[in-house]
Amino acid sequence: MSGPSAYERAGVDYDTLDAAKRTALAAALSTTSFPLARGARLDDASRGEPAVVVEVGGVTLGFVLECLGTKSTIARAYEELSGVDRFDAIGYDTVAAVVNDCCCVGALPFVVNAYFATGSASWYAGSRHASLVAGWRRACADSGAAWGGGESPTLAGLVATDGIDLAGSAVGRVPDGVAPLLGAALVPGDEIVLVASSGLHANGASLAREVASALPAGLETPLASGRSYGEALLDESVIYVALVDAILERRVPLHYASHITGHGLRKLMRADRELTYRIDRLPAVPEVLAFVASEAGLTERDAYATLNMGSGFALYCGAGSGAGVVEIATELGYVAVVAGAVEHGRRRVVLEPVGVEYASDELELR
Amino acid sequence: MSGPSAYERAGVDYDTLDAAKRTALAAALSTTSFPLARGARLDDASRGEPAVVVEVGGVTLGFVLECLGTKSTIARAYEELSGVDRFDAIGYDTVAAVVNDCCCVGALPFVVNAYFATGSASWYAGSRHASLVAGWRRACADSGAAWGGGESPTLAGLVATDGIDLAGSAVGRVPDGVAPLLGAALVPGDEIVLVASSGLHANGASLAREVASALPAGLETPLASGRSYGEALLDESVIYVALVDAILERRVPLHYASHITGHGLRKLMRADRELTYRIDRLPAVPEVLAFVASEAGLTERDAYATLNMGSGFALYCGAGSGAGVVEIATELGYVAVVAGAVEHGRRRVVLEPVGVEYASDELELR
Repeated sequence: MSGPSAYERAGVDYDTLDAAKRTALAAALSTTSFPLARGARLDDASRGEPAVVVEVGGVTLGFVLECLGTKSTIARAYEELSGVDRFDAIGYDTVAAVVNDCCCVGALPFVVNAYFATGSASWYAGSRHASLVAGWRRACADSGAAWGGGESPTLAGLVATDGIDLAGSAVGRVPDGVAPLLGAALVPGDEIVLVASSGLHANGASLAREVASALPAGLETPLASGRSYGEALLDESVIYVALVDAILERRVPLHYASHITGHGLRKLMRADRELTYRIDRLPAVPEVLAFVASEAGLTERDAYATLNMGSGFALYCGAGSGAGVVEIATELGYVAVVAGAVEHGRRRVVLEPVGVEYASDELELR
Repeated sequence: MSGPSAYERAGVDYDTLDAAKRTALAAALSTTSFPLARGARLDDASRGEPAVVVEVGGVTLGFVLECLGTKSTIARAYEELSGVDRFDAIGYDTVAAVVNDCCCVGALPFVVNAYFATGSASWYAGSRHASLVAGWRRACADSGAAWGGGESPTLAGLVATDGIDLAGSAVGRVPDGVAPLLGAALVPGDEIVLVASSGLHANGASLAREVASALPAGLETPLASGRSYGEALLDESVIYVALVDAILERRVPLHYASHITGHGLRKLMRADRELTYRIDRLPAVPEVLAFVASEAGLTERDAYATLNMGSGFALYCGAGSGAGVVEIATELGYVAVVAGAVEHGRRRVVLEPVGVEYASDELELR
């Protein structure tokens, strides 16, 4: 793969990781038959999608395990500098990372479990844990999911002494009468609605930290708006579950959905289909992402391949229904635009407003 | 809580963690109603149990997220010393930790997701990843569960550079006509069958590492059998799913199950019931656990409150059915004994063979 190097500079080698992911996927693929005796049928078409789809006892489930990445280290550093505890946002972000993946396949999450792995019990001093729990709970409320349980180990020597590794898992249900969103329904002419992000969300934290470490004032660097870099980085994620729920509920023809995370807008071609995704309009770029991209010296091509650059979620809906989706989104408080369309042609993403194109081999998840 | 201090010495402060766990549980408890509109009913009686139970669309599910703890660091150190890659066992152990918890509530796992969080992409060098994947897959086969997917982030600065934080999540199904095993069915007179562990399993790794660091030959220290300490620590876990499956299938009256993990045999009183659990026979203590207990200077009381000491899983079955459970276990290749019984009396565990008793306040998980 040709392409971005900024992320690799920040310690994330997607080539190696993507290759390992494919090795694991191949092994996983060979296990599909194991639970057939228990009456559970895993849909192999969901492999490589953000959530795996399993049909059991007449119910279609989506199941996902996701993590926050290293964003918690920004909250910890920001707390030390400013005295402000933003672990509520970090808890919210973690649930968002999980449930946004879950609803991508059309599964509305009903239960979420937590993984809070600290490096030492000293992490629990002060208000951090209570904040984390409060943010987690609020995100469950905004997702319509119960918080089931989870695990909170102390991993001395494995997790950094003052750190917390956060992840979560969710199970969702695909409403009866709805086909899971696995890409098969995509057709040329489908409209692509991009729904705005609030900023960094869960991806790009390593790069954001690299940028901070190169700045004399670090996280306290003021942005043009007057907000500090650290404060802006910790704006909490947007949860898109209510939007997917409303769209499915109103029977809008939703053909696919993509959560824009690692790999940035390359994720627009997540589906395993030979189709072109042409974008002619992009949501506004959040100030903090423009700042990261600029300070890291990213080209437009690298920036949009690495960060969400303002697009947190993509909805692919039948020709003519994009405006209706934007209307529903607006009604629910989201910012969304009809951004482009699906076309005949080779698998690629074309971002016309910034003159960037990503070829098929720049996103290999299977 | 009076009691063991060895674990705290190794960096695991269960008092702090249990208190935090209760804070999180209280928040979680307030979320039960959130998914009712989606037709999902979380059973609050499952809170504090190893897996949460949710009924959706007429199907009863168990859902769990669990982690391996720090055992992977032993495999890494052992590999560096001996050149032997045992990450297959580590993969197996992680799945075992997850699915053994899942089947505790009577839910037979049908899908498992993986969490492989490394500190740097360099972890993927050599055979480790392929071994891990192979062990993970084999454990799925032994559990009857499909490997769905998962997440494999690189968390620079958060996870140790040469380390891997391993966890997993599973969804299982409680067979139709079976009530989830949540403790309500326990009655005085129930027989307790203890099923043998193979050694350390996933709990006690921090203490085992502390012991290694105090030994001149470390992990290469020979045990009485001639095996090295490191080799023995890495004996892979036992997966108990097939046993629970067979017991449920044959309609043996199974009233409860407990996976013996952190807190050792205190976990025998996991159920939220005012009952006494009297054990008059214990499985053999694996050589490696006797060694850890002895080198760490643990009393019997501390050892059985910290490590599994040979008992990996407890099955609580109706009076008169213990021998039948042992027979099924033997048939399937497990080692099991009718170890004791449930009695009227205050919540406590009595281990007669070692003259140890644990009071109710020594296990507070709710």
